[in-house]
Amino acid sequence: MAGLQPLLDEIAQEMAGCAERGEPASYIPELAKVDPARFAIAVAPVDGPVCMAGDVDTAFSLQSITKVFTLALALERVGAELWARVGREPSGNRFNSVVQLEYERGIPRNPFINAGAIVVADALLDGRAPAAVLGEIVAFLRDLVGPPAPGAGTIGIDERVAASEAATGHRNRALASFMRAEGNLRGRVEDVLAVYTGHCAIAMTVTQLALAGRVLAEGGMVQGVPRLPADRVRRINALMLTCGHYDASGEFAFRVGIPGKSGVGGGILAAVPGRASIAAWSPGLGPKGNSLLAGRALERLADAMGWSVFGAMR
Amino acid sequence: MAGLQPLLDEIAQEMAGCAERGEPASYIPELAKVDPARFAIAVAPVDGPVCMAGDVDTAFSLQSITKVFTLALALERVGAELWARVGREPSGNRFNSVVQLEYERGIPRNPFINAGAIVVADALLDGRAPAAVLGEIVAFLRDLVGPPAPGAGTIGIDERVAASEAATGHRNRALASFMRAEGNLRGRVEDVLAVYTGHCAIAMTVTQLALAGRVLAEGGMVQGVPRLPADRVRRINALMLTCGHYDASGEFAFRVGIPGKSGVGGGILAAVPGRASIAAWSPGLGPKGNSLLAGRALERLADAMGWSVFGAMR
Amino acid sequence: MAGLQPLLDEIAQEMAGCAERGEPASYIPELAKVDPARFAIAVAPVDGPVCMAGDVDTAFSLQSITKVFTLALALERVGAELWARVGREPSGNRFNSVVQLEYERGIPRNPFINAGAIVVADALLDGRAPAAVLGEIVAFLRDLVGPPAPGAGTIGIDERVAASEAATGHRNRALASFMRAEGNLRGRVEDVLAVYTGHCAIAMTVTQLALAGRVLAEGGMVQGVPRLPADRVRRINALMLTCGHYDASGEFAFRVGIPGKSGVGGGILAAVPGRASIAAWSPGLGPKGNSLLAGRALERLADAMGWSVFGAMR
Amino acid sequence: MAGLQPLLDEIAQEMAGCAERGEPASYIPELAKVDPARFAIAVAPVDGPVCMAGDVDTAFSLQSITKVFTLALALERVGAELWARVGREPSGNRFNSVVQLEYERGIPRNPFINAGAIVVADALLDGRAPAAVLGEIVAFLRDLVGPPAPGAGTIGIDERVAASEAATGHRNRALASFMRAEGNLRGRVEDVLAVYTGHCAIAMTVTQLALAGRVLAEGGMVQGVPRLPADRVRRINALMLTCGHYDASGEFAFRVGIPGKSGVGGGILAAVPGRASIAAWSPGLGPKGNSLLAGRALERLADAMGWSVFGAMR
Repeated sequence: MAGLQPLLDEIAQEMAGCAERGEPASYIPELAKVDPARFAIAVAPVDGPVCMAGDVDTAFSLQSITKVFTLALALERVGAELWARVGREPSGNRFNSVVQLEYERGIPRNPFINAGAIVVADALLDGRAPAAVLGEIVAFLRDLVGPPAPGAGTIGIDERVAASEAATGHRNRALASFMRAEGNLRGRVEDVLAVYTGHCAIAMTVTQLALAGRVLAEGGMVQGVPRLPADRVRRINALMLTCGHYDASGEFAFRVGIPGKSGVGGGILAAVPGRASIAAWSPGLGPKGNSLLAGRALERLADAMGWSVFGAMR
Repeated sequence: MAGLQPLLDEIAQEMAGCAERGEPASYIPELAKVDPARFAIAVAPVDGPVCMAGDVDTAFSLQSITKVFTLALALERVGAELWARVGREPSGNRFNSVVQLEYERGIPRNPFINAGAIVVADALLDGRAPAAVLGEIVAFLRDLVGPPAPGAGTIGIDERVAASEAATGHRNRALASFMRAEGNLRGRVEDVLAVYTGHCAIAMTVTQLALAGRVLAEGGMVQGVPRLPADRVRRINALMLTCGHYDASGEFAFRVGIPGKSGVGGGILAAVPGRASIAAWSPGLGPKGNSLLAGRALERLADAMGWSVFGAMR
Repeated sequence: MAGLQPLLDEIAQEMAGCAERGEPASYIPELAKVDPARFAIAVAPVDGPVCMAGDVDTAFSLQSITKVFTLALALERVGAELWARVGREPSGNRFNSVVQLEYERGIPRNPFINAGAIVVADALLDGRAPAAVLGEIVAFLRDLVGPPAPGAGTIGIDERVAASEAATGHRNRALASFMRAEGNLRGRVEDVLAVYTGHCAIAMTVTQLALAGRVLAEGGMVQGVPRLPADRVRRINALMLTCGHYDASGEFAFRVGIPGKSGVGGGILAAVPGRASIAAWSPGLGPKGNSLLAGRALERLADAMGWSVFGAMR
Repeated sequence: MAGLQPLLDEIAQEMAGCAERGEPASYIPELAKVDPARFAIAVAPVDGPVCMAGDVDTAFSLQSITKVFTLALALERVGAELWARVGREPSGNRFNSVVQLEYERGIPRNPFINAGAIVVADALLDGRAPAAVLGEIVAFLRDLVGPPAPGAGTIGIDERVAASEAATGHRNRALASFMRAEGNLRGRVEDVLAVYTGHCAIAMTVTQLALAGRVLAEGGMVQGVPRLPADRVRRINALMLTCGHYDASGEFAFRVGIPGKSGVGGGILAAVPGRASIAAWSPGLGPKGNSLLAGRALERLADAMGWSVFGAMR
């Protein structure tokens, strides 16, 4: 893709000069330690080699970004019956609000808010041991990424982050207990949370994440090999667009115009259908819990490349 | 566009056979009288002639669909300052809820819920007489549609519908008074509601509506002539996708996958960027206030044509 | 009542020394002008002459305190059917919240929050002209107070306050319009608000108010003459205790322990069943909209006199 | 107290004839098994012997009624600092709502809703073992009741009820986890819930409960012996009146007019300051979770005896 590498270099340079970088997530102690000066971006075009710029060798915590992949696995396992237990609407609330859950009798609004992802984890658990499910998720991600580049680390769970979140995970425990009370959780609360907390703690570099995201940009294929049904991928992309940035999803659609999923680790994964998968990362978050610089970099990139699903740029 | 006309005929025939058709909006007496057996669909490709099927000669009440066009006019008039008075996020609530408005101090979540459209009407009013503003809106729509086909009616306000809504408009008066109390309305409540109620009562055929929508599908052009900035159109499309179907916007994105705006008159306007503008109409509504058959027809059409902004169908 | 007059003098002196006095209601311009240094208190024992101290010759705006008397009149007029239109539970919300109203389909939680008092005004209106209803309310109050003391002003509506509130009454208009939309208002919104705004603007001195409140302390009698059914008075007292101080009603019951009704004009009327009626006034309000010093004076008085409905003081 | 025993007999007979009795609490399996035909009432006057009628030998589960006594103990232990962690306002919500808790950042509205009583249990726990705290509560109750009558059972925890609730206590776990997340719980969630669930499962007869309640009617004394500070008792009575019947507290104050606390086991404890303590029990609950017949019996009794804190009956 002509001009992509210089563009990424330019964006990385611009981002290095940004004074206002937000603050790393403070409620997970391990994440709060990450240096807000970090920034990285990688693009995996459907028809060309990966390009990247910035701190591309640093693995960061995916956090909510993993929810895209666990959703794909849960749909594979339980099919459309999942949609009886979790909705498909933007929430109009913070990512971890219990209010909506109470008004709607324990049915989370969508699979990307915490409560929804806890239901997805429960569907994946399906009577198995948490470790087995976590193993399946990690294997799925490694497989999507493909053979490791020489010198690249192995994709896995960052146990310090998982432990750090487990200690402060009372709010997720509240959500899970509430849904258990409403009959929308089948596994034991602690098992479900073990899966949830574990998969949020998976770490990757932007390059690995961009490679993992190709399946979303290529209609379920990875370099021409079918991996997921096209129809399912299309719908996951729709959910990313309407619900992928918590209570700032509308804003991301308005400004950037492509499906994306953010995580409080500072990463954003975005998919331009038919064109490319993009991963950006910078640990400082804005007021709604999304990476400030990763969002800005994606807006800059989409604008320069004319990548919007909503029509011509100018 | 090869095969489009037979496809529309087939869809119209399928819809004629549907037993479950929903119920016309009951709270506006004039709308409640419309025959639920009606159905019509029209497609205006960016590069070809309009195709249509069903009750294509009947004008129906646009209701909330007009909000797409008043938003475009208001952005033209006051520019980005509008966004200080109305948000860009899905609401997670019914179209006329006051709850969100109270929690967020009189700033509606987006320009398509009633409160948001009332703010847009106030921005358009801008010290003028309501009749002048309504004249501007009607002229804008006539202009986008182009010269009337022989025998076609003139686009205008259906005064019986406007009167019918004015009589039952206490809830909109509550929303407007509340925003006035919070300082987010500048005009007199009655003037703003005159604009709001009037523009909701504009009537069109599906053919006229599909023609009016071309500007959204063609990046701000109408048959090659620039009418709106591409950037503004792209963002209006984004808002339609995330907020265009009230509290079922996520569902429409998930199932159909194209930007669309529905109205309680039973119409839906949808735009496939770069391809076509679509208008469908059938008066029976589903539980969230969107036309049951117009939605189903759009899903069928998008699926058959491979029209999704989120990637390949299969 | 031995020792009452010196106690009131002592309390008035203490209050004069208080530095922290709160702020007068800012949203009604006429009320915002009142000097926060003012303070007055009057006690009308069921078996003795009225005692008073402080600015006892200044009439102040009753605001919500009138709601106690309009409730008594509305129950006289429409009887228990009123309770199908308004509840009897504390609201758990601000006095003018629309949220509760939406969740509970236009039925206000109790007759003392704004929405509830608007329904009471509508019940009193009952097809009559607003001026006639206001005349009835003023006559009822004058009658309860008894013949004016030499030199005392006549009880009436302060038209400047009424006009001042009418101009800023958009929020009440929102509440009324909303209830009209839900079918819980029968009169025209403007007529109902004319009654509501008018009766809130009635002005009295603390002495007059304490005299008017005797009927609540004496089980429906005024100096031995029956004026209201004992049973109705008992229930109005119960409502004052549970709902009389907006979202600080529990706090007033906890600290003071007697039925009381506050108004944003800075007044509080309290009734000690079988003992005395009390009126206190100071314009500065605390965070929940109740007079800071009037509340403190009542706590001090109740404590000194052993006046709690909840048992011995010490 | 002349005429009390025949009155209680009459009330018991009337209640036996009631067809509409409500339904026992269904969410705690052990409670759901209790025969809805049961009814009992006992009155302990401050100046005379206990009178009783109905199923007076059957111990029933106190459930929320215990919260009155744990509040007294917690105030003894931690003093007024408790009020920084729990409010004193009626909730305007169901007894176990999480919504209010989220809007008010983990501070429950009052000590009688579940979340508030969980905070009280945490304050009582104060680093101790749950069993020690439960022992203290049971000892306190036995002590208030006095020496057991010949043949009367010992007051203690019904372990089957405790186990039954523990199994279904996910909603309380949600509340506790949520408050832990907000920093308003110090002990381990499971320990706090052990105290909470245990004290709710204490069983007593109406006679025992009426005896235990004397301290509230006698200003902190029990037969002339000081047991609790008068001031604290007065305030507990105020809280019972404003918050003692969940979201029907206003209704109970309106109809019955005395401080009372209900439990989902079907019991109600009421205190008439200076007169008597009353316990009534019947397992069938009304729509707001309060015993239908116990409430009706109390209304009947209060009316016949002229026992209202709000003034003369007629």
